[in-house]
Amino acid sequence: MATVQPQESHTSILAGVGARAREAATALRVATTEQKNAALNAAADAVAAHKDEILAANARDVEAAKANGVSGAMLDRLKIDGARFEGVVQAIRDVAALPDPVGEAIESWERPNGLNISRVRTPIGVIAMIYESRPNVTTDAASICVKSGNAVILRGGSEAFETSSALHRCFVEGLAKAGLPADAVQFVQTTDRAAVGEILAGLDGAVDLIIPRGGKTLVARVQREARAPVLGHLEGVCHVYVDGGAEIEKAVKIVVNAKMRRTGVCGSAETVLIDRKVLGSHWPAISKALRAAGCEIRADAEIRKIDADAKPASEEDFYTEYLDAIIAAAAVDGVKGAAMHIAKYGTGHTDAIVTEGEAAARYFLDNVDSAIVMLNASTQFADGGEFGLGAEIGIATGRLHARGPVGVRELTTYKNVVRGTGQTRP
Amino acid sequence: MATVQPQESHTSILAGVGARAREAATALRVATTEQKNAALNAAADAVAAHKDEILAANARDVEAAKANGVSGAMLDRLKIDGARFEGVVQAIRDVAALPDPVGEAIESWERPNGLNISRVRTPIGVIAMIYESRPNVTTDAASICVKSGNAVILRGGSEAFETSSALHRCFVEGLAKAGLPADAVQFVQTTDRAAVGEILAGLDGAVDLIIPRGGKTLVARVQREARAPVLGHLEGVCHVYVDGGAEIEKAVKIVVNAKMRRTGVCGSAETVLIDRKVLGSHWPAISKALRAAGCEIRADAEIRKIDADAKPASEEDFYTEYLDAIIAAAAVDGVKGAAMHIAKYGTGHTDAIVTEGEAAARYFLDNVDSAIVMLNASTQFADGGEFGLGAEIGIATGRLHARGPVGVRELTTYKNVVRGTGQTRP
Repeated sequence: MATVQPQESHTSILAGVGARAREAATALRVATTEQKNAALNAAADAVAAHKDEILAANARDVEAAKANGVSGAMLDRLKIDGARFEGVVQAIRDVAALPDPVGEAIESWERPNGLNISRVRTPIGVIAMIYESRPNVTTDAASICVKSGNAVILRGGSEAFETSSALHRCFVEGLAKAGLPADAVQFVQTTDRAAVGEILAGLDGAVDLIIPRGGKTLVARVQREARAPVLGHLEGVCHVYVDGGAEIEKAVKIVVNAKMRRTGVCGSAETVLIDRKVLGSHWPAISKALRAAGCEIRADAEIRKIDADAKPASEEDFYTEYLDAIIAAAAVDGVKGAAMHIAKYGTGHTDAIVTEGEAAARYFLDNVDSAIVMLNASTQFADGGEFGLGAEIGIATGRLHARGPVGVRELTTYKNVVRGTGQTRP
Repeated sequence: MATVQPQESHTSILAGVGARAREAATALRVATTEQKNAALNAAADAVAAHKDEILAANARDVEAAKANGVSGAMLDRLKIDGARFEGVVQAIRDVAALPDPVGEAIESWERPNGLNISRVRTPIGVIAMIYESRPNVTTDAASICVKSGNAVILRGGSEAFETSSALHRCFVEGLAKAGLPADAVQFVQTTDRAAVGEILAGLDGAVDLIIPRGGKTLVARVQREARAPVLGHLEGVCHVYVDGGAEIEKAVKIVVNAKMRRTGVCGSAETVLIDRKVLGSHWPAISKALRAAGCEIRADAEIRKIDADAKPASEEDFYTEYLDAIIAAAAVDGVKGAAMHIAKYGTGHTDAIVTEGEAAARYFLDNVDSAIVMLNASTQFADGGEFGLGAEIGIATGRLHARGPVGVRELTTYKNVVRGTGQTRP
């Protein structure tokens, strides 16, 4: 995307934050792998060392949330108990153990005039992370950004403010131990909502990329108002299409896992599509298994003709990301019908086909233009860890730069390095 | 970047343009290489066949421009004479001859659970091209977008309206012959400036990428107002740094070529930096050669001490893209001083170092974070053709998706294709 010259405004409540991030990014861009790993491991040590302090901060957040009548699910996301605490520490060490993408030559070629051209991975620069209640996002995002050589500005949810502040202090300690600038990881020290507006405005051109992580309302606002590029996803209305060429057992296993393994993740299936050619042969087993797993089925008229227990699906159901034990179901006219349904109702996140048919598989994988398309696999594999990226900062459903899981490598860009021996252009 | 659901507004003067482009993009995305090449070659044939009509249209544009008192340089950019006309036709055929990037697997790997994951190139979708007087940009942009499987909305300069309209009709003819939708290449049929505003607003989410091509005022407006990602560059304040370890002959050749081969291109050098260690030994030969080539030198005080003929350079000179036979010159404290100067005054386009010193070369290539960094080569190689991309739609100086020359491959994105054999996630 095009760059804008930073011109730090001094009236802003985040005055200086962008400029300091930009300066830290310059140092981090050329930091060695050893330095970055040392900072991450020192940060992990600091988190472990300050356990009591962090748990106390978390307790204060939880108390305040309860006092504000926060719901159970949100309270749960907010809470850091013993096991989760160890997970936070380990996640930082895991990112330190990942290969460093910076400096890697993506490709390299020689020109007839002897010029050697290579595209070398370099950090993006300054990343702004806007997220909600999970405090572990603070350490996950900080780790992934530091590893990829990016400075990060963290704007966490007010519910987790105390916990995130305590975790951020540990990161600053780690950066200092490794001789890296503390401003490489900044945490917005205010719950003032105006701060989000300033970040979305790009902090006078200092922000290269904004990553929202949270509910639909937050992401929608970021996508609507951001004046800098945004990497993220709004919704995951993921589909599993059971083709005429599908093996029943595989179809049952995949549909049930895609929907029910965890219903609250963005890669969980929200709609099952079935080729009307196998509606009679395959649907009874699929619906039986879904119901046995505790899933409610909302189906179109054609399916309900053979499945009296299915509730009727409204047009709205096919647009809905339930994130719950509910699945919409529709009969379609083969793989083309499935692709048309997904093009109309899908969100470009993850969509899968179950089939043994070569032609149907190729058609689906070619024509369904989602960030992730799958053949004979559960949509719940839509995850950076499952992809082998090591850690992910989120899933991107946009068209540019990166699609699907975003890990340390996806947080880099490249520069063109041209090596000559005195060549001039005729 | 994140996508927005298209909701075509019907009050707009471009009503329907975005929706039609989106629909054409769906067809073009899965068009075969043969179909796309056939469309391009048929378009080239049509341009050749309608030569008289196109030249007549161009003559009308030129007359109107003269009547409006348009300047010589702009008139020249507008004019399509015999040789240029053949160039326009050949350029389309050249793009047809390029390899098709769509469907190429960028990388592919296997997971321990047997899942095969590959990242496959797919078109971006709908590209909006906003450009000025050069009518050949109409055919260049249309060719590159069709080859990369993207639908394009062309908004050309009003001065070239007649010529661009005539060229566009030839493209529609070519698309029809190949059985591809005419809406794959739309030309905005109005010179109403409000159309640009609607395109910058993203045509209700239908535009995936905006590419501006033209003067600073146009590009600045696009970067400022665009509500969709922008790929392009505002200015090319390119530097050549003559290091203490530079061979005089190479330095002279490269500096003169970088500045004087063509002074009007974005890759031409605007500033020469010289290591003060070799100011006395190297500058006389460099300045002599520059002046012999007809270049005016505006130097800092340190250089002027040994070069009485140099005009004084103001602070402003170092920020200026002259696009003329003028070069700013400054003495710096080695490669670190050069990197600091470039970080302050550069525009992230193309910067080169001349040196035989390994350490200095590595420091420059690592620390100067421009889209293109060069060692012992002329900055005038900053060009898609010279990079071997075949054809370029522009040069990008932003941080994301693509940096440097943007050709057919850079106009693609990828999707994650996961092939399984029935895997479910534990």
